[in-house]
Amino acid sequence: MLKRIQKGSLVETAIESLRHAIENQQWQVGDRLPVESELSDALGVSRNTVREAVRVLAHVGMLETRQGDGTYVRATRDAGETLRRIARTQLTDQLEVRIMLETEAAKLAALRRTDPNIRAMTAALDARGRADNSLAERVRHDETFHHALVAASHNSALTELYDYFSHAITETIERTENDADLPEPSQEEHELLLAAVRRQDSEKAEKLARDLLVPSLIALRKREP
Amino acid sequence: MLKRIQKGSLVETAIESLRHAIENQQWQVGDRLPVESELSDALGVSRNTVREAVRVLAHVGMLETRQGDGTYVRATRDAGETLRRIARTQLTDQLEVRIMLETEAAKLAALRRTDPNIRAMTAALDARGRADNSLAERVRHDETFHHALVAASHNSALTELYDYFSHAITETIERTENDADLPEPSQEEHELLLAAVRRQDSEKAEKLARDLLVPSLIALRKREP
Repeated sequence: MLKRIQKGSLVETAIESLRHAIENQQWQVGDRLPVESELSDALGVSRNTVREAVRVLAHVGMLETRQGDGTYVRATRDAGETLRRIARTQLTDQLEVRIMLETEAAKLAALRRTDPNIRAMTAALDARGRADNSLAERVRHDETFHHALVAASHNSALTELYDYFSHAITETIERTENDADLPEPSQEEHELLLAAVRRQDSEKAEKLARDLLVPSLIALRKREP
Repeated sequence: MLKRIQKGSLVETAIESLRHAIENQQWQVGDRLPVESELSDALGVSRNTVREAVRVLAHVGMLETRQGDGTYVRATRDAGETLRRIARTQLTDQLEVRIMLETEAAKLAALRRTDPNIRAMTAALDARGRADNSLAERVRHDETFHHALVAASHNSALTELYDYFSHAITETIERTENDADLPEPSQEEHELLLAAVRRQDSEKAEKLARDLLVPSLIALRKREP
């Protein structure tokens, strides 16, 4: 057991050393890393540990292993580390970012939405309206509506980011039981947002999307230390 | 060598299986995972492979290993996977997100900037102006200015995200040598943005930040297939 814990922390140390060297541009993007035995000597850990550390950094997109060739630097930032740092920021900072993502998405959706986008948003919103007696059902359809709205922006990077942030925030709120009395936007406010997107009124869509979420931000800010 | 490749792909397969089960809420956030031997049986891989897969998912924030206790589900989304998916989206989608981040940051910076923020932005911009004859120097001070602007938003989640995106985009542009004739915003445009932030005119700051970057987006869009 002791051995296993030590090994875990050795891998973590090797990850940190490699990350640090790459962030500080000891190697540039596109450079090939030294072979395993060299890295093993340089870091003072086994080749097996080097291999595990490389695997983790490949998984987060910093390194890329080309079979039969070697390991290359792919990016100087660790995506996993970035989002872990974000997860440690204040919930209100994260919610502010989510509002920004959704507001921009609403604006772009008004400019770019297709008929299938409008149908998906309408179906989700109607289901939300019918789920009047079940909070769990309402939340589920509400999430579907918001994801359909963001998908209508036709920006994949924005959609991925929104998906990640909305989940992270929901989970944080659930974990901290912080949602006891967060304001819930009405069905009518959602209808107006959908109407603005349908009418391709991007300025109005942007404003309505913001108005939908800002009350939650204000409520959470009041509880901050 | 063959054995090593197979082992790598086994770990990847174990990561995929675990990620899939967590994304589909086979376990909830806060749940403890089955012990290693059970997971090893369920996934049909060695305990060592399970351990490596768990380490990767812990690194990206999906799992959390508490020593002497067990492994818990921390989040239902894989941050590494999210940002890797983003890295595969079109450069123009990524740049559109960067513009959104910087525009929102400029607006917030006008509302929240402190004296040290203004000093940091001013110093970077003056250095940018003096670096008239060296593109590399000008780019370096330009980056410092933009990071100082975003830091003045006093939103850590936004700052982390901007840092990640601006690096990813710069690296993509450098790798694809796509920047040959991207429009470079003038010193004057930067001065006006700084002035708006200093005067706490958030509407103007937002607009100027957008105007600074939109020409690059338009230029890149023209080159898209």
